[in-house]
Amino acid sequence: MRRTIDWNDGAVLIIDQCALPVEYRTLRLRTVGELIAAIQRLAVRGAPALGAAGALGVALAARAHGEDLDSVRRDATALAGARPTAVNLSWGVERALGKLAGGPDAVLAEARTILDEDERVNRAASRLAADEVLRRCERRPLRLLTHCNAGRLATVSWGTALGVVWHLHEAGLVEQVFADETRPLLQGARLTAWELAEAGVPYRVLPDSAAATAIARGMVDCVVVGADRIAANSDTANKIGTYPLALAAAHHGIPFFVVAPESTVDESIPDGAAIVVEERDSAEVTSFAGTRVAPESARAFNPAFDVTPAALITAVVTEKGVR
Amino acid sequence: MRRTIDWNDGAVLIIDQCALPVEYRTLRLRTVGELIAAIQRLAVRGAPALGAAGALGVALAARAHGEDLDSVRRDATALAGARPTAVNLSWGVERALGKLAGGPDAVLAEARTILDEDERVNRAASRLAADEVLRRCERRPLRLLTHCNAGRLATVSWGTALGVVWHLHEAGLVEQVFADETRPLLQGARLTAWELAEAGVPYRVLPDSAAATAIARGMVDCVVVGADRIAANSDTANKIGTYPLALAAAHHGIPFFVVAPESTVDESIPDGAAIVVEERDSAEVTSFAGTRVAPESARAFNPAFDVTPAALITAVVTEKGVR
Repeated sequence: MRRTIDWNDGAVLIIDQCALPVEYRTLRLRTVGELIAAIQRLAVRGAPALGAAGALGVALAARAHGEDLDSVRRDATALAGARPTAVNLSWGVERALGKLAGGPDAVLAEARTILDEDERVNRAASRLAADEVLRRCERRPLRLLTHCNAGRLATVSWGTALGVVWHLHEAGLVEQVFADETRPLLQGARLTAWELAEAGVPYRVLPDSAAATAIARGMVDCVVVGADRIAANSDTANKIGTYPLALAAAHHGIPFFVVAPESTVDESIPDGAAIVVEERDSAEVTSFAGTRVAPESARAFNPAFDVTPAALITAVVTEKGVR
Repeated sequence: MRRTIDWNDGAVLIIDQCALPVEYRTLRLRTVGELIAAIQRLAVRGAPALGAAGALGVALAARAHGEDLDSVRRDATALAGARPTAVNLSWGVERALGKLAGGPDAVLAEARTILDEDERVNRAASRLAADEVLRRCERRPLRLLTHCNAGRLATVSWGTALGVVWHLHEAGLVEQVFADETRPLLQGARLTAWELAEAGVPYRVLPDSAAATAIARGMVDCVVVGADRIAANSDTANKIGTYPLALAAAHHGIPFFVVAPESTVDESIPDGAAIVVEERDSAEVTSFAGTRVAPESARAFNPAFDVTPAALITAVVTEKGVR
């Protein structure tokens, strides 16, 4: 499957990201309810991929409910609220809803347009970001560090932060990528490492808390991450652990880049303080693969995202350029 | 078992820290080889506890080899090198070796003295550190954040950083403790949370990478950690993840305390650059409880410790006072 998420014969087809890297399998989602469940357990995740999921979900709803537009809108509202932080989800829902008057086929056509745009936009944004990396980092070949997964699995295809790696790797300019494992759900160890291995890019996985040591030892030339929501002032919400990484990069004077499609920018929000951060279940932290790793009484503090202030970001790059 | 490690009927008895929190069990170690294996898989860990282990191991060797002092010294060298970063291990070995001329009973007596000293010293150091916390933090009750495990399980008894919590909790001054889970081996989720639950102290476990967010949101009054080796200039090696925590604390202006017995101070090392940091096996990061969490090809960057520069530490407190 070339795309992480696609429309296929009346259903939404996704790569099941909960099964990687042990198993590669796809899931057919036939209803909005199934799609919401897949989004909530992160079988499909990543801000740009959620934009596509939002639009495709409205296409599912439009087919299911026919002329009952109230039901379509009710499904769309539930879908947009499935996860609160990534603005792309409601952006995708809204774009598809805008075609509702044209009937189910018009909604589906709009969703397909979003899918097609996604690769083009990500390639452009990551090309501009790669140029920015080359301008700001002297060393060749480069050693980049990334957090969570901002690769093709986080988008429809190609990726954002990992898109930068693909461009640089094509030019023979990547020595190694450090992939933060990204607790609690290990998207870095499971998904980013899988993508890097598939692409033949040398990489090492590391505990999130070891990134500051890699940076302090001069093993990293720059940090490149994706984003889930970018406020008007460029404060950026991204996977939990991005903010301490930005602190370490700033402390040691290495550049810190955010790469995302324009659809991740939320101009309605002045700064990071207004971004709603999803808090997820304690069990994600207190147990692992069915094994309890904390006392039964343990509760966790488990915010899914953090907010990095614009002052710590060297450049936020979208397909339109450096913000 | 009141002590984490003790001498019992010709053997070293330890609480098996690999089994917690799911199971509480003790292990009898009859030979230096068994003790070294237990140290290397972290069934016994924590700098002060390793000091005791070093001394008790020499007592085992002295009994086993009788007048063959060369064999005792060979065992002692292997023991001291079982893990490289915590200076206490070789400190305990050296102290016990100093009594070798007096025979096995004199060696054992010295080891027992170290065990007895440990609780007294930790109580004193953590009492002084608690006073320092109360002087530097205004809020009552307090919200403390700690990393890894510097509790009774890291010592013979009582603890260092958690010793501060015990003193403050006895005085009714603790609102909550944030326990970093501490990847890759989860000593925070497994051991610190277990101790806090046993003591009835309210706590929450969090991914290491979420600590900066807790601090940024004003949820934490101070950070308190232990140490594995303190250089002459007070640069401090401690569990990986301590350094980014210190960066976050400094950035947000909350105090950062290191609490340890004097035996953790290595005056022979001028600063942190000279501290040897153990790098552990990739598998600790790339698999979990037998489940692979990264591609089979994945290698990890897995330093067990990091070094926090003295400039980021509000106070290093030992039983002798604030350094």
